Amino acid sequence: MRILIPLFPGVTTLDAVGPYEVLRQLPGAEVHFPAVAPGVVLDGAGALGLRADTALGDFDAADVLVVPGGPGARPAQTDRALLDWIAAVHATTRWTTSVCTGSLLLGAAGLLRGLDATTHWGAVDALEAHGARYTEERVVERGRIITSAGVSSGIDMALTLAARLAGPVPAMAAQLRIEYDPRPPFDSGARSKAAPEVLAYLAESR
Amino acid sequence: MRILIPLFPGVTTLDAVGPYEVLRQLPGAEVHFPAVAPGVVLDGAGALGLRADTALGDFDAADVLVVPGGPGARPAQTDRALLDWIAAVHATTRWTTSVCTGSLLLGAAGLLRGLDATTHWGAVDALEAHGARYTEERVVERGRIITSAGVSSGIDMALTLAARLAGPVPAMAAQLRIEYDPRPPFDSGARSKAAPEVLAYLAESR
Repeated sequence: MRILIPLFPGVTTLDAVGPYEVLRQLPGAEVHFPAVAPGVVLDGAGALGLRADTALGDFDAADVLVVPGGPGARPAQTDRALLDWIAAVHATTRWTTSVCTGSLLLGAAGLLRGLDATTHWGAVDALEAHGARYTEERVVERGRIITSAGVSSGIDMALTLAARLAGPVPAMAAQLRIEYDPRPPFDSGARSKAAPEVLAYLAESR
Repeated sequence: MRILIPLFPGVTTLDAVGPYEVLRQLPGAEVHFPAVAPGVVLDGAGALGLRADTALGDFDAADVLVVPGGPGARPAQTDRALLDWIAAVHATTRWTTSVCTGSLLLGAAGLLRGLDATTHWGAVDALEAHGARYTEERVVERGRIITSAGVSSGIDMALTLAARLAGPVPAMAAQLRIEYDPRPPFDSGARSKAAPEVLAYLAESR
């Protein structure tokens, strides 16, 4: 089972790594992190380098495609080669998925026209500009395309996908291995739940 | 505010990246990923390379130390230089923290003797061998040492720590930015919650 998680400069690391830590546990999983060219790419915060072990061109098919987001996922900043590759590999996948603004790359690759999809709460207009219908859910599964909300939602998405790929027991085992029994100390993880002072703080610190 | 997240061969990426994505957002945060020597280290699953941007020796003090775990965090497999460095830097920190089996490195560095602490559910005996008292909570804060449970718990730990470092509003803003509003499709993230068939599957697939 070939799982490809493409990397690009400005990727948000957790978008890629959350699903990775779940999906890599599935029986027969073989995960690769290709980029336009192999080598280290710097993440969106500029502090962490991730090594792309392969080139996009090394793969023309996959069972699962997981497209992460990040500041580098705005299509205007994205290598056309990545978008063309996403479209081509999507034609071969069992599941094509995105985390956070990875949905904008699926959209720019033409995969979301007329489809329900989700993205980071700050990228709703950008998503709809690609013809998708924004759906305010954490994980949106339509046909073989699964999009998920901001950053950490990739973990929930991957657990859902793990069950589709391998059944509920391996999916639950993956959840246990990463001890994903969330206990956030605050309830501020969705825009609808955030206090006015939190939204004001974010607006100021932009 | 200097935040150091040491890397080593066999680190579990999510252990390091969960806290990173939260803490890097705090005002004045400067995050580095040092290793014994700068360069790419391969993670515990062997599929992802993370670039250590600095050497341990580049730092003799930090505000915050976050020690991740992973298959490479078993002290017998660990470079003594990392343990000595952890002990030395700990003497300077405001907060010293661990995720998952990173607690075994804190323990091997002599920091947990007689202290309440937690770790991955599969490493309880190894933790107690270092003189810690295992405490079955997701995040255990004792003095200026915070340990957290397996892998994904580092996100919860970091949100708690973010509030200590910068107050609740920046912490809640970080939670919103990573859209951490967890919706796991199963309730199998703690050993006490796992079904017998899940535990049997894990035992078989070891």
